[in-house]
Amino acid sequence: MLTKSELLRLRSLREKKHREELGLFVVEGEKVVAELLAAKFPFVELYATEGWEQKRVPAESAPPTLAARTIATSEMERISHFPTPSPVLAVGRIVREPLAPDDLRQGLTLALDRVQDAGNVGTLLRIADWFACDRVVLSPDCADLFHQKVINASMGSFAHVRTHTAELAPLLGSVRAHIPVLGCDLDGDDVHELSRLENAVVVIGSEGRGLSPGVAAQVTRRVSIPKFGRAESLNAAIAAAIVCDNLRRISRAPAS
Amino acid sequence: MLTKSELLRLRSLREKKHREELGLFVVEGEKVVAELLAAKFPFVELYATEGWEQKRVPAESAPPTLAARTIATSEMERISHFPTPSPVLAVGRIVREPLAPDDLRQGLTLALDRVQDAGNVGTLLRIADWFACDRVVLSPDCADLFHQKVINASMGSFAHVRTHTAELAPLLGSVRAHIPVLGCDLDGDDVHELSRLENAVVVIGSEGRGLSPGVAAQVTRRVSIPKFGRAESLNAAIAAAIVCDNLRRISRAPAS
Repeated sequence: MLTKSELLRLRSLREKKHREELGLFVVEGEKVVAELLAAKFPFVELYATEGWEQKRVPAESAPPTLAARTIATSEMERISHFPTPSPVLAVGRIVREPLAPDDLRQGLTLALDRVQDAGNVGTLLRIADWFACDRVVLSPDCADLFHQKVINASMGSFAHVRTHTAELAPLLGSVRAHIPVLGCDLDGDDVHELSRLENAVVVIGSEGRGLSPGVAAQVTRRVSIPKFGRAESLNAAIAAAIVCDNLRRISRAPAS
Repeated sequence: MLTKSELLRLRSLREKKHREELGLFVVEGEKVVAELLAAKFPFVELYATEGWEQKRVPAESAPPTLAARTIATSEMERISHFPTPSPVLAVGRIVREPLAPDDLRQGLTLALDRVQDAGNVGTLLRIADWFACDRVVLSPDCADLFHQKVINASMGSFAHVRTHTAELAPLLGSVRAHIPVLGCDLDGDDVHELSRLENAVVVIGSEGRGLSPGVAAQVTRRVSIPKFGRAESLNAAIAAAIVCDNLRRISRAPAS
């Protein structure tokens, strides 16, 4: 049985303020918790209702490095952040890996400039994972990385992708002399015609507002996805996916 | 002032059953209504609260082919399908254009197989619009095309894209001898290496469940988006966008 203070603590993690205070975040949902366990995500607490352990697909699951504490369904209902609680709730520690500007000079970086929709941020992590981006850097005004909606929308990619939070304008300013900083725009260079770029930063702005002025000023090359019809724009995640697909396609082609 | 029966009728259009009975659907939201008016969408009724007319940006708006009926904010609150009503609500007639199987032999068709999330269907319409797909065919178990969430997520592309609803398996069965029917899959041919296809059907399945078996059986060529990292999958709209971007890129390249 959970004590009252345990209940309150777990419930409090719904709010970013409390997550930051305690340095902890919550993940719920059978599928996403199973995926994160399979990726050996270092959870620090695990709560499950009776029968959850049996439902785990063994092939998908890591060896039980952390035993689940069995709680009653009524308790799960009280600690869950969802209207319909899942049979499992995991608690992870918020870890923020340091980022040196020089790190950006190696590999493909996806930089998110004030992408505030949590579902979009999660989808962008999944895209970064699919295309093996070396890191994702979020501006401090993006949706909180440790919000459940981000983690759920990432479908487990949350555990695969290296993420950092940083002010983008000074960070990009310090590397733009060394590697290309690509920004998506409506009248940039055709993304189909890019040359091979092994090391680059792709900056994705918020839908509707685009790149913030300070970040736009650090872009060294504006790229566009050719439009054939009449839609005004594509959403941020779709634009990011198309740019990454083209960069990876070009980097595989024989050097010309 | 609206009569009680007008209020009830407008409110009833939240439900698909009533939309089908009356052959009408509702669009709300300043931006999307302005976009659809600019695209000369043939609305049949238009309701607005005081001051809306002045806020329309003239350049974006079609000449007023339909006068807005001014109603009180309290009335708008009652007819709106949203918790926070917009200053304008438009009513359109449900029109279903007939589709002959031979129509699919010309141009690029996006076929949606049981895509049930309304936001995804709207996003797919926007992608079809961007890449100038000649038509979108929805299986009957897709999200309802006349659901507000679909129309809002399409960001005005609802008015640009030709849409049809049809059972996909027999439709594709009758054209597969004449044009390629591409289905996205995890172990198909590399989408980067496709040859030029001016006429094709791209079938997009539901996220999670993929293509239904009857539809999968009609696919003539399975295509895959190369994966470089570890994500299990990409979402349906993102996969569709990447396939369309590659098809359009290849169709622009000099014939080899």
